[in-house]
Amino acid sequence: MFKERLERLQKMLEAPLLVLSLGNLFYLSGFRGSLGFLLVLPEGKPFFFCDGRYVTQSREELAIEAEIVEFDQDVVESICGVLSSLGLNCLLVEDAASVSFARRFEGKSCSVSFVPSPVHVLRAVKDKEEIQAIRRAVALAEKAFLEILPLIREGVEERDIAVELEYRMRKLGGEATAFPTIVASGKRSALPHARPTACKVQKGEWVLIDWGVRVDGYCADLTRVIPVDKTASLCFKEAFLALQEAQEVALSCIREGIEASFVDRKVREFLDKRGFSRYFTHSLGHGVGIEVHEEPKLSSKSTTVLCSGMVVTVEPGIYIPEWGGVRLEHMVLVTEYGYILLDTLPEVF
Amino acid sequence: MFKERLERLQKMLEAPLLVLSLGNLFYLSGFRGSLGFLLVLPEGKPFFFCDGRYVTQSREELAIEAEIVEFDQDVVESICGVLSSLGLNCLLVEDAASVSFARRFEGKSCSVSFVPSPVHVLRAVKDKEEIQAIRRAVALAEKAFLEILPLIREGVEERDIAVELEYRMRKLGGEATAFPTIVASGKRSALPHARPTACKVQKGEWVLIDWGVRVDGYCADLTRVIPVDKTASLCFKEAFLALQEAQEVALSCIREGIEASFVDRKVREFLDKRGFSRYFTHSLGHGVGIEVHEEPKLSSKSTTVLCSGMVVTVEPGIYIPEWGGVRLEHMVLVTEYGYILLDTLPEVF
Repeated sequence: MFKERLERLQKMLEAPLLVLSLGNLFYLSGFRGSLGFLLVLPEGKPFFFCDGRYVTQSREELAIEAEIVEFDQDVVESICGVLSSLGLNCLLVEDAASVSFARRFEGKSCSVSFVPSPVHVLRAVKDKEEIQAIRRAVALAEKAFLEILPLIREGVEERDIAVELEYRMRKLGGEATAFPTIVASGKRSALPHARPTACKVQKGEWVLIDWGVRVDGYCADLTRVIPVDKTASLCFKEAFLALQEAQEVALSCIREGIEASFVDRKVREFLDKRGFSRYFTHSLGHGVGIEVHEEPKLSSKSTTVLCSGMVVTVEPGIYIPEWGGVRLEHMVLVTEYGYILLDTLPEVF
Repeated sequence: MFKERLERLQKMLEAPLLVLSLGNLFYLSGFRGSLGFLLVLPEGKPFFFCDGRYVTQSREELAIEAEIVEFDQDVVESICGVLSSLGLNCLLVEDAASVSFARRFEGKSCSVSFVPSPVHVLRAVKDKEEIQAIRRAVALAEKAFLEILPLIREGVEERDIAVELEYRMRKLGGEATAFPTIVASGKRSALPHARPTACKVQKGEWVLIDWGVRVDGYCADLTRVIPVDKTASLCFKEAFLALQEAQEVALSCIREGIEASFVDRKVREFLDKRGFSRYFTHSLGHGVGIEVHEEPKLSSKSTTVLCSGMVVTVEPGIYIPEWGGVRLEHMVLVTEYGYILLDTLPEVF
């Protein structure tokens, strides 16, 4: 599968491409270190550049045939040297590179252009192995969630819920949390990206949990809100019902060929009718895979048309400052016939 | 303290600076979100740009007086608008910015220069509050380590050691692990950045653990090797003794005014005499603070002169492919009189 990904990329290339984003390196080669550079030529074996820390590891991890080149401190010198030995003098570099890295090509023999990485285009559509890995991540995240659900009651600290959930995810075989776990209760749930605190969950409140795990390099990303008892306010119920309907609106639109921005717009139009749209302060969803946020975006400004094989979150939220917030996040696979829900947890607890 | 940091930065500026690295944002403002931009003017109140997700959170977290500006999708437009409303038309941007972000300034009214961030210069020397936070992180990392030490025996999986250690660090109050925990036994310890596997620790082996935690935004980073029984090979003992001596060589050099590259060189010279220098495949150490790797570097190519208040790791390592590796990592505070050891764990277990 790595070989096929590489070949698909090579067909898109008219000049050598330097891949340096860690997610793209993993996608193309299986490499998992914290620094490496893959020089992909339009044809033939790629070159993998790493420093001394990763020579042995890359021999072990690389799932493609590549020439491993150890660099001392100046990888740019080393890359230009290889290109020149091949009689090549132009190079495409992923534009995720920093300006300071880009500067290091100044005065070098090869002519460099910075381009949006074509690897992101490939990664937006998942292959079978990737979908399986994402399903494993989702299943593990759900299992861990169900294990800690009994913890959620009056008096427990947000932090303790997060710590136990992360522990369960690791214990069940997760490689790491996919992002800092969000556990927010009471008014703090109005912060879409709240960090868990020592706040204790109070009577009548609800707890918003946004959590994820990485399994075999792939992420899960889910959100649920759990009322701590039966006394949640009417306003909570109204907002939550609106979210559930917003989910249905979104899911009913999702299908190959639909514009991502259309799905976002439909949800906003629906929430507008319910008087909630001004409290929906982020975009509707995002691709999930090797990274927890990747292509495509489900947002008003997205220009993406959904394709079969894309995996996205659908996560409408309503955040009312000084009152609190609710969010409901599913993960779905786009197909030509509609969506396939990847998570199986109920929406209501 | 945030106010003083900002003032120190402002004194260094001749033009407005756009700060976008998350570590620098946290250092200057206390902001902890995943996306934000601080426009620091040479004088007066800075502007903080964030999207809808972070408006409420930034009001809560910002520890400096700043004008909060919410942007929709185009922060660059928003920044240029503010500059132009102030009658300003030039801007410095941290060169950690990506090339794709840099491109978004093309055709805009303000003239932009990308510069190495002066904030890194400030951050290399820690203030009292930072040193206290680092000490808290080290103490917590050590406590968690001692709690899981009894786990390290024949038959336990590398992975289980990592999971339990991370759980303990979180449980004791750590915000997160500072980096993916390394637990490597047997031959796998020859990989300086090994990920923990399901490999079981065997008789006569040792376990290399490199772990860290983040407390109040600051990191700890330590490494120890733990023989699983009394039967470790002579080669292990020889390499380990060399490392202990290499530590002494390094520590005895560390003092304000000494070149960082000198310390690295002295250790390499020492390991050379013992026949181990070719197995020491990374640099001697690095600054630790908000990020686990930051300025200054203790490496052969570093041009830094050590200053009082710097916090660095000292971590010589010996990695012999197909045999295994050992590393011993301390954290020290540089002073005018020498070093202060920040960790208190023994070297030998």
